Amino acid sequence: MKNLSVTMLMDFYGQLLTEKQLAALDMYYNEDLSLAEIAQEEGISRQGVRDSIKRGEKQLEEYEDKLGLAKRFLRISEGIEEMNSVIDSLVPNGNEEKTARLKELSKQLKALL
Amino acid sequence: MKNLSVTMLMDFYGQLLTEKQLAALDMYYNEDLSLAEIAQEEGISRQGVRDSIKRGEKQLEEYEDKLGLAKRFLRISEGIEEMNSVIDSLVPNGNEEKTARLKELSKQLKALL
Repeated sequence: MKNLSVTMLMDFYGQLLTEKQLAALDMYYNEDLSLAEIAQEEGISRQGVRDSIKRGEKQLEEYEDKLGLAKRFLRISEGIEEMNSVIDSLVPNGNEEKTARLKELSKQLKALL
Repeated sequence: MKNLSVTMLMDFYGQLLTEKQLAALDMYYNEDLSLAEIAQEEGISRQGVRDSIKRGEKQLEEYEDKLGLAKRFLRISEGIEEMNSVIDSLVPNGNEEKTARLKELSKQLKALL
């Protein structure tokens, strides 16, 4: 799990957390607020925020341990990246239209990842 | 959700169900056993099996409603299929090595989908 970021796991499994937990993680990881700032925002203690974030992270990791979908996506994403760079390097000689279609498709795929 | 099969949703979220539920769905959808056969196997009533399967299906659909990962994968999968057919149709003229690499990559990607 260590190589998958919390933000990536939030993107995948965040909707399975409680609203409060997701909000705390979002403020901490995406909005880069401090524990003290989140505590003020939520009206709970700094320690309460810390616990909530830790619990949320643990749950996200448990989902990934069970389902492994973030890792699967990451591998697919890497494969598509590599395809893109090969496609970009194709010598244009009679395949212009097809190469253009490949570039378009790989762009669409990247948008899904 | 209607266009996503139960077996696909099982592949994505099955590990979030109870062992019993997953077993019942697996016997019904993958092994193609009848409700009566599963009931005998599990030592519960035919109606109990039916309820368990319905509940499991509902849960799988709820996970997909929240996370949408099966749909996202399906779109990626379709894009890769289309890329594959374009790659297969490339005229071989100076790009042989790169085309071979693209075919290899798209094969690897398909194995992840």
